Amino acid sequence: MDSRNGVLHRLKIARGHLDKVINMVQDDEYCIDILTQSQAVQGQLSEVDAKILEKHLSTCVADALKKGDNKNAVNEVVKVFRRGHG
Amino acid sequence: MDSRNGVLHRLKIARGHLDKVINMVQDDEYCIDILTQSQAVQGQLSEVDAKILEKHLSTCVADALKKGDNKNAVNEVVKVFRRGHG
Amino acid sequence: MDSRNGVLHRLKIARGHLDKVINMVQDDEYCIDILTQSQAVQGQLSEVDAKILEKHLSTCVADALKKGDNKNAVNEVVKVFRRGHG
Amino acid sequence: MDSRNGVLHRLKIARGHLDKVINMVQDDEYCIDILTQSQAVQGQLSEVDAKILEKHLSTCVADALKKGDNKNAVNEVVKVFRRGHG
Repeated sequence: MDSRNGVLHRLKIARGHLDKVINMVQDDEYCIDILTQSQAVQGQLSEVDAKILEKHLSTCVADALKKGDNKNAVNEVVKVFRRGHG
Repeated sequence: MDSRNGVLHRLKIARGHLDKVINMVQDDEYCIDILTQSQAVQGQLSEVDAKILEKHLSTCVADALKKGDNKNAVNEVVKVFRRGHG
Repeated sequence: MDSRNGVLHRLKIARGHLDKVINMVQDDEYCIDILTQSQAVQGQLSEVDAKILEKHLSTCVADALKKGDNKNAVNEVVKVFRRGHG
Repeated sequence: MDSRNGVLHRLKIARGHLDKVINMVQDDEYCIDILTQSQAVQGQLSEVDAKILEKHLSTCVADALKKGDNKNAVNEVVKVFRRGHG
């Protein structure tokens, strides 16, 4: 619950910053400032991803591994890791 | 103008997908599905960044370099590149 | 054993490509070609990381989680994930 | 010359660290330590990329843009940026 609320709070901050990116483009602001703001949003989402992954490993993956259901649980996490690394 | 509208269109799609991430967290959906959706938003923003950078290089950076004002223009672009690479 | 040999094989290919990057810089080759080659090495190392992570989750993390030693095992994996995402 | 030597120096350090990754795998060291070392190599290469890009923008791209040859020079840089962002 607590962790979910923390994640929701961060996601809403990221959405606020994404709204700001949209306004900056509409107002023709300086490209570098827009890029800086957009990269900040991506950094915030990536930080949220780390929180969600942490919870996922401690709960779902832990349960799956205890049941010996390694393969699927591991593959899903590796896929998330790979996607984040181009 | 055209390029700005294209960028705005993509940003609004990314915002729609970020709203979906928020809903998925509120609905306690499966962590891996949330992470997949969040990474998709980051990919869309990164794609927008490439478009903005492209325009920035063709316009502002081109102007600065023609005026011999290399240092600042180059440093700004390198900073954006660095931030995107952890 | 098999997985370790696969990882070693890929790492040696990456080292060969890194040697090529060094030669390209020494021979003053075109910057973009050097960058392309350097990014390929990073992609290969990141692919190796995914393989090592896969093995780590299936073995060490699985053992730790079975013993209820969640916290440390999870934190280490999240740290690796975070570092890969700037 | 100076910048080239700096780049070569950093690349050789990265190669030394990559050799260490290979040794660590051969010695069956702890996966997380191997991943940490591998990610350090990638960070070093990415830092070298930023240096090379900086020089490329100040020289080749500046020359191309002064000649009005924007399109190709810009596309090449955007491609490098994109590749680094998965």
